[in-house]
This record gives sequence, C-alpha cells and structure tokens, in this order.
Amino acid sequence: MIHPTNRVLAARLPGHVGETVEVAGWLHRRRALKSVTFLVLRDRSGLAQAVIRGTGPDLPEETVLRVRGTVTANPQAPNGVELTSPSVEPLSGPAEPPPFSLFRPTVEASLPVVLDGAPVTLRHPRLAAPHRISAASVAGFRGTLDGLGFTEVHTPKVVSSATESGAEVFALDWFGRPAYLAQSPQFFKQAMVGVFERVYETGPVFRAEPHDTARHLAQYTSLDAELGFIADHREVMAVLREVLAGMVASVAARAGAAVDLLGVELPVVPAEIPQIHFADAMRLLGADEPDLSPAHERWLGEWALREHGSEFLFVVGYPMRKRPFYTHPEPGRPEYSNSFDLLFRGLELVTGGQRLHRHEDYLAALAARGEPVEPYAGYLRSFAHGMPPHGGFALGLERWTARLTRADNVRRATLFPRDLHRLTP
Amino acid sequence: MIHPTNRVLAARLPGHVGETVEVAGWLHRRRALKSVTFLVLRDRSGLAQAVIRGTGPDLPEETVLRVRGTVTANPQAPNGVELTSPSVEPLSGPAEPPPFSLFRPTVEASLPVVLDGAPVTLRHPRLAAPHRISAASVAGFRGTLDGLGFTEVHTPKVVSSATESGAEVFALDWFGRPAYLAQSPQFFKQAMVGVFERVYETGPVFRAEPHDTARHLAQYTSLDAELGFIADHREVMAVLREVLAGMVASVAARAGAAVDLLGVELPVVPAEIPQIHFADAMRLLGADEPDLSPAHERWLGEWALREHGSEFLFVVGYPMRKRPFYTHPEPGRPEYSNSFDLLFRGLELVTGGQRLHRHEDYLAALAARGEPVEPYAGYLRSFAHGMPPHGGFALGLERWTARLTRADNVRRATLFPRDLHRLTP
Repeated sequence: MIHPTNRVLAARLPGHVGETVEVAGWLHRRRALKSVTFLVLRDRSGLAQAVIRGTGPDLPEETVLRVRGTVTANPQAPNGVELTSPSVEPLSGPAEPPPFSLFRPTVEASLPVVLDGAPVTLRHPRLAAPHRISAASVAGFRGTLDGLGFTEVHTPKVVSSATESGAEVFALDWFGRPAYLAQSPQFFKQAMVGVFERVYETGPVFRAEPHDTARHLAQYTSLDAELGFIADHREVMAVLREVLAGMVASVAARAGAAVDLLGVELPVVPAEIPQIHFADAMRLLGADEPDLSPAHERWLGEWALREHGSEFLFVVGYPMRKRPFYTHPEPGRPEYSNSFDLLFRGLELVTGGQRLHRHEDYLAALAARGEPVEPYAGYLRSFAHGMPPHGGFALGLERWTARLTRADNVRRATLFPRDLHRLTP
Repeated sequence: MIHPTNRVLAARLPGHVGETVEVAGWLHRRRALKSVTFLVLRDRSGLAQAVIRGTGPDLPEETVLRVRGTVTANPQAPNGVELTSPSVEPLSGPAEPPPFSLFRPTVEASLPVVLDGAPVTLRHPRLAAPHRISAASVAGFRGTLDGLGFTEVHTPKVVSSATESGAEVFALDWFGRPAYLAQSPQFFKQAMVGVFERVYETGPVFRAEPHDTARHLAQYTSLDAELGFIADHREVMAVLREVLAGMVASVAARAGAAVDLLGVELPVVPAEIPQIHFADAMRLLGADEPDLSPAHERWLGEWALREHGSEFLFVVGYPMRKRPFYTHPEPGRPEYSNSFDLLFRGLELVTGGQRLHRHEDYLAALAARGEPVEPYAGYLRSFAHGMPPHGGFALGLERWTARLTRADNVRRATLFPRDLHRLTP
C-alpha cells in the first residue's frame, strides 16, 4: 500500500537481475560516449546505472527521472548491475546546474559555497553523509537511555528570565512581554527529575555569544540527560559512557554506508573511560588557571591517547568558580566540584556533573554569589518540595558528529547553520 | 557500574521477598495508626510500602527517603509486598507541602493550580501519566519512520523572513538583524527531500496566534514527515496510517501502566482509514464553506464512528484557497487540493498533502496569489535544481496525547505550556 509503484531502490537492484523494474532518482551523471550514453541515477540508497544505445536524452544533471529497464549484470557498474534497454521519463523540468558538480567524488568548493547552497549542495553524497551519521547518533542516544528507564521530555524554548548565564541570550517579544530563547533545558530537566527520576531531551538551544569560530553555533542540538538518586557525579559519567557506546554502535549499525564513504574510524569507547582530576591536569600542563584552554584540551587529548589508548578523557573536579551556581562541590575540597567535561579527540564534547539538591544549599549558593533569589523562584520550587541527589550532562550533537567525521568545522555537521553572520538559507 | 547502590525499584520488589533491600523515592503518603506507621514511597516505577512499629519518623510528604528493610509478602500492600523492620534515611530536608495532596487518587485542583505548580504537581501519578504516553508516542513515530527509510533532521528554529503565513510570528533580534521564530519546518523538510528523499523532525514550533482556547499553544511539538517519489497524497496518507498504528502500539508497549492508570481506551487504527472528500463532507453537513469549523469536525467524527466504526477520518481535497501556496491542486478539479486533514475523535490532529514540485508551478502559484518571488528565493532553489513529486504531514504531539487521554485541555499534555498568558514556570 505504501509502495503502489514498483520502484526498486538502487541498492536492491542486484536482487532483481533479469527482471524489468523501475528506478527513480536524480540524474547524478550523464556520460555520452560515441555509441552509448550512461545515465547514473542517485536515490536515497545509492547509485544505479542505465545504458542507452546511441546519444540518449540530453538532460542536465539533477533532473529527476523515472527509468524502466532490464536489470543486467555488469561487474563494472555500481553494485555490479545496470539497467539495459531503458525508457526514461523526467518527473520535473530540466534542472539548473548546481554550484559545483555533485558527481565528483571529492568536494573542492569552499564552506560558504556549500552552506549558501545547502538545499542543493547537501545532495553530494559526501556532504550528506555526516547528517546520516548524526541521525544514527541521536537514535543511539535515545535508545540507550530508553533502555535505562529514562523518559523523554519536551520543554519550553522561550523563558521569562535570562537567569542561567547572564547576557548571552536572544531577546524577543512574547505577546507584549519580554522573553528569551532558552540557552539550555537545565532548569526544566532538573525539575523533571522530581517527576520521572530520569529524563532526556534532544532539542535546540540558543546562545547569543558572538563567537566566530569553527566550533560555535548560535543554535545547536543539545542532547540532554538528567538522573536522580545518584551517589555522585561518577554515576552520571557511567551513564554517559553507556550512551557514547550506544551512539557509536548505532552509527555502525544504521549509517555504515556513510561511515565507509567518509572513511570514518569509529572510536572504541573503553569500558572505563580514563579520567584525570582538574588539579592533576593543571600540574601535567604546568599551568595554573581556572579553566582549560582549547590548546590544553588538545594536549590532554593526546596525553589520553598516548597513556591510556583512549580517544575519550574525563576531566573531573573543575573549579567551582568556573561552574554554574547549581554545581555540587567536591566533598572535602570545596574549591573543586563534582563536575566533569568529556574530551573527545581533544575537544570538549560534554559538560556534566552532580547538582545541588537541597533547598538550603541553593539559597546559600545564590547568596555566596551575591545573586537575588527572586528570579529563580520557579526553579527553586522543586527543591523546596523534595529532590534527590541528581546530576546530568549535555552533549552537543554537531560537535560530536564533526569530531567523529574529523570535519574541520562544526557547520559541516549542521544542515542549516545559524551563527553571528548566518541566518539563511 | 550504573547501579553502585543496591536500590531496588518499587515495581521489582515482589522478586525479592525475604531479602533485605534498599528502596528510594518520595514519601508519597505517611499514615500513622495507633501502633503502626505506614510510609508509602513513590519512585519512577510505582509505590512501595514500609511498615514501622510505633509512630515512626514525623516527616512531611514529598520528603526524599532511602529505606532499607526486609521484603515481606502482604496481599494488601502495593504489589503484594511491604518492607518490614525498615531503617529510614532522609536524602534531603523536610519537604514543603505541595499545593494539593499528591497521594489522593484523583485531582480536584483547577488547571491553573496544576500548571503554576508543575515542578511539584506533575509528580501526581495521574498528572505524570499523559507525559509518559506522550514520550511513548514519539518513540513510535520515530521507530515507524526509521523502519520506512526516513532520516531524522534538525532544522533552524530562527528564520530570516516570516513568509509561511504572514503576521502570526514571534519577532526577535538576531545579532542586530530582524528574525522570526519558525512556525514549522515546512520549507526545510521539503528541501531535505532533495537530499534524503524521506525525512522527519520532532521539534518545537511557534505560533504567535492570540488564541485563548483549550486546543492552541504558542509553542508545541510538531511531528513532521516529508517524502519524495510519491504518486499523490494517498501515499502520504498510507505512511501516516502506519505511523499512527506505530504510535498506538508503542504506547501499549512502553506506557502500559500509564494507560491503565488513566483508563485510556487505545484506538484501533483501521488498515484503511475511512476518508471523505471535502465537497462530500459539506454536502453531508448541509453547509457550503471553505473550511471545517470545530463543530463540523465533531459531527464528522461521530459520523465516521457511526458509519465506519473508526475514530479516525481523513477529510481530503480541501479547497485550494484555504491551503498554503505550495499545495498541489487536485487533477481535474483545480479548486480542490491533493491535501488532507486527519480527524481523531472529531478533532483535527494532522494536516498534510502533496506539494508542488516543479519550479514553474511555484512561480505560477505565487504570481496567482500576487506574492513576490524574492522572499522565497532560498526556498525555490530546491525546485530549480530538480525535485520529485513529494508530500508530507505534521502532527501536533500535545493534541494527540490530549485526545488519546480524553483530556479537556491540550495543556494537560504539555509539561510547561507557553501561550498568550503563560510564560512561566
């Protein structure tokens, strides 16, 4: 019922040798030789070749076609088969040429050309592949957490106050009232620990930071999780380890063709991801700073690979003064925190940790930072009504995919990036 | 590694009779009799009872507790077991009382009281249940489409022009440029048919419509799908039928306890959902209007149940003048369209249809409506470069869940609603 036509996907043609079938897709390449014309069609599964005696129809590449022909073995054709004696029917008008040839194996075009023409340029198999890997990664994230008893939530992306980190928010008019785009689902996911114990969300977050770098976006997809009844941050790290393993397994299972096309080396997620305390990391680095610089992160990434054979490294115990007020301090060393970053191939990919859970601890933490309680009244309500020890993490999807595919810019893992300069297409 | 404590979930206690175990959760109810005190704990799996000889600790309800005790059979206790000789340890301070008692089986509180206190009130099992059903529904949506070869996408929620339907958008400042919250992923998902053929997205959309009704939200979760290489809208309807069946099956499989608690009657999705043409519906209704009113929808819902035994009804062929410019007309009757609404229990739940796919048809459609081409330049690009016949649909998650659970207001299926009046919590 769902496939009333007899369309066969390109990748499945080898199972139909000798039959007359229909394929449909974009004209990926037209190659006219003296006595024969090759039409290579691209559909969502791959490429299919049709061979026409003579010159064949003079159609531009990217024109959408339906081709009926006999499936014939030919070891030199894609998948070892081709369509012979084909009849060709265009499904839309002749296509305008794309900004660069989509049939060439590599892409020479600059990143701005790719992004400006995204509706067309992303049709290039190498440019589409990271997004297939991204989709498989999110499926792995959700599947792992579903298996661990988490509940998916959907929280507001518009909030009434810009409390979480000051000025770096987008302001908007909400039926005449000032409002802001949510920087994260942090407060909501914590509140929902009070309802479901274990929650996750996969959704957009917005940062009005005027960063113009290869790793910052003003809208990105945040994979958030939060769980209650933990002993401390190490249980959050254990869940994150399972999530990363699940994401890698899902990419292998669901996006194998994209992985092969890009030559992606999937990382091994160690049963126990190595970790180093922030204070020890500073000693190793011969530095004394309250945060890690990108150069520090790269150095530590190489160190973890060299010393532990791991592409992942937990840095735990970040100084409290560089973490948000809801961070749980390290017992016995209150200048440090029960928080962590996960570095993947030398880049910060995940931030997480244990949160405060006692109402009185929140009041004290806000007082110590000289912050008023009033803007947080809604947030604090959960804690006044009883909350368990809890913690969580947030993983930036585009950073993950970019690092996994060794892309030079997070925008290569974003269909339509939004940043300081880019609001279209 | 993920469970370093020996915590046992309430629902699993029957498997541990005779053992000494630890449970943890919120003090759902404390009941002190003359010589014995019952503590009922609530965790994500359900309820567990502990029995204390004498008065026991005087803790307010919602206080978070860890209880160690011996699992003992008692047919009158939840799940037929209770913890005897328990030791009780509070994990946070005594809780403030919630706005209403969370242990009573029914909720008498008004909707505003529920929504204002959401971080606490949603802990009531009956108020949490719709959200568990919602999560299971989304899992069914994604799982069905994954199985049909769809790719998940993440598209921008901030756009540069308010083109899709005029004035009803939220405006914001994007690094000094005017921008708008996306009303739907419509244009992006169509463009991505050019890349992946079949795509879906589950994400927030924003409508600045000043509707103050039980079925409108200013932010809601849209379950969007779009697919290429279709014959017409009937193939989209066939995919939607599979999706609905997958959602119902997922709710039954993943949220059975919530279904039972609320007494939800899961609908049967017919192998072929009945359909009626808009023109025939108007004849049946004895009306002659360009759109269906809510009263019309209710009447047609009853008609479908009576005549076809179905809680679902497709109304196809809506007049072109009430549909967006990208809608594909009905061949031979161009005043009607290849579009549909799906009514579920007499409420419009899904809108979808076949879209135009030829570049020249878009230019003609815009010209016929007197609209300039320039604001649509980015959108039109896909079609200039070759697009197949395609179509799709959008399903409002909160409406679905509300209708499924027979809630009187869509806000009962929304964790933290955003509307004309509500921007907190």
